[in-house]
Amino acid sequence: MPANTNAYFTEESSVEVVTSRNGAAENERLAEVMNVIIRKLHEAVKEIEPTQEEWFKAIMFLTQTGHMCDEWRQEFILLSDVLGVSMLVDAINNRKPSGASESTVLGPFHVDGAPERELGANICLDQKGEPMLVRGRILDLDGAPIANAKIDVWQANDEGFYDVQQKGIQPDFNLRGVFRTNEKGEYWFRGVKPKYYPIPDDGPVGKLLGALGRHPYRPAHLHYIIEAEGFETLVTHIFDPDDPYIETDAVFGVKDSLMAKFELIEAPDRIAEAGFDTPYFEVVHDFVLSRA
Amino acid sequence: MPANTNAYFTEESSVEVVTSRNGAAENERLAEVMNVIIRKLHEAVKEIEPTQEEWFKAIMFLTQTGHMCDEWRQEFILLSDVLGVSMLVDAINNRKPSGASESTVLGPFHVDGAPERELGANICLDQKGEPMLVRGRILDLDGAPIANAKIDVWQANDEGFYDVQQKGIQPDFNLRGVFRTNEKGEYWFRGVKPKYYPIPDDGPVGKLLGALGRHPYRPAHLHYIIEAEGFETLVTHIFDPDDPYIETDAVFGVKDSLMAKFELIEAPDRIAEAGFDTPYFEVVHDFVLSRA
Ligand SMILES: [Fe+2]
Ligand SMILES: [Fe+2]
Repeated sequence: MPANTNAYFTEESSVEVVTSRNGAAENERLAEVMNVIIRKLHEAVKEIEPTQEEWFKAIMFLTQTGHMCDEWRQEFILLSDVLGVSMLVDAINNRKPSGASESTVLGPFHVDGAPERELGANICLDQKGEPMLVRGRILDLDGAPIANAKIDVWQANDEGFYDVQQKGIQPDFNLRGVFRTNEKGEYWFRGVKPKYYPIPDDGPVGKLLGALGRHPYRPAHLHYIIEAEGFETLVTHIFDPDDPYIETDAVFGVKDSLMAKFELIEAPDRIAEAGFDTPYFEVVHDFVLSRA
Repeated sequence: MPANTNAYFTEESSVEVVTSRNGAAENERLAEVMNVIIRKLHEAVKEIEPTQEEWFKAIMFLTQTGHMCDEWRQEFILLSDVLGVSMLVDAINNRKPSGASESTVLGPFHVDGAPERELGANICLDQKGEPMLVRGRILDLDGAPIANAKIDVWQANDEGFYDVQQKGIQPDFNLRGVFRTNEKGEYWFRGVKPKYYPIPDDGPVGKLLGALGRHPYRPAHLHYIIEAEGFETLVTHIFDPDDPYIETDAVFGVKDSLMAKFELIEAPDRIAEAGFDTPYFEVVHDFVLSRA
């Protein structure tokens, strides 16, 4: 029998009394996880000293957050995001060796099965927004190019919406594409300059942000998943450092190493070379993968 | 501007980066509460080091718990109960002076508007179960009787169900009643010997208990809410110390001071005096209220 099973609950003994009940769990990892959760929950309650009314408000907040979730909306992930939990879990699971590119959150808008496109293809299918050329190399930690790396990219349009948020308005797979690096490890594709956008803020999480005086915006970014045989898969973004929300990303995804430069190119020969007919933004960004 | 707003998120700085965003909250208490929650959540994540899969399991558990909630079922309260959080909030909000009766959780089965009955009335309306007489006094801290105290009692039947769980099977307001103490502070009423019962265990919380090797049972008890003008309202139970689950209440509600004695009375004169025609259980229990 675990030590404290027979002692009744008191404010002082609360953690020991509750965790001692988990001694018979078959799943040791579950018991370990729950024991930490119970301890931290009780520590929080003892520090907050909530009134019964505040406790009930928390119950109702969780209930409403659950009721907001359906096949298309995951309000608990949103809650995890705005409390920095998603980024923390990402950080813990992606401790990279020095020199490797850093990860950030996947986000809710990745879609499996985006079409594989030729290098240089324009992923913008509706001719809207300011043109952008993105190029760079995929390298290993020694700086050697990785050929045939798979690069899955997706981005919001210049109004801040992903195609899946505007079904019937944007073409399917608009601003998404899968590319493969050439034998020099190079990739390039065309798209549109991304813009900041709000996370879905019409639910309990949006209300909480409002009550905390926080805005719901994410600074402009491009999403990448980069896979190559023998290397760790990298899930990351690159960000526009000039975005108004670059220092206050609602989900804390920004890192110094993920800043890209969006350079306005106006020289006619370069415009022609990039396949555009107006000035465009050029982004040059390399990624370094660590070995699996 | 709060100090850390402009520093990007890292494993090390995660708490400061996230809490610094709450500096503009109008509601200071909300910011204070959320800052504690964020700090304890991050501490828990850093100690647990969940995989992405474990994190997603937690998201799905919370989502399913939310989806289980409706007008009749509050799965998040159940979760709070089985993790000892409800008892902890109760304890923090009911620190009583020495000598006063202790509180315990209200539970989900209280019903407003139970009928006021004459002292001695039998709250068992369906003649099922083993007869029980409960009596005692309501006293102040000096031992003086409190007249006209309002005593709201409710209990499960001998199968472990409350009337509201068996609509159409049990009569309405079965095993519920409101009584008033006489001028000597005395109360007495008749009912049936209560039995242990499981908390609702067909949802995510029941599954969690199962995975942790915990049973869902509460030991046999009677519920009381005792109100008297000028005194703190007391929400409590009395328990049967011989119940098989007395040391492992699924919601941690048991306290030493809440033990009652269920004495089997077989003497014919006492059976007649109590208004029964078979042996019955007698429970004598006084309560001491502290001044408001
Ligand atoms: Fe995004
Ligand atoms: Fe109960």
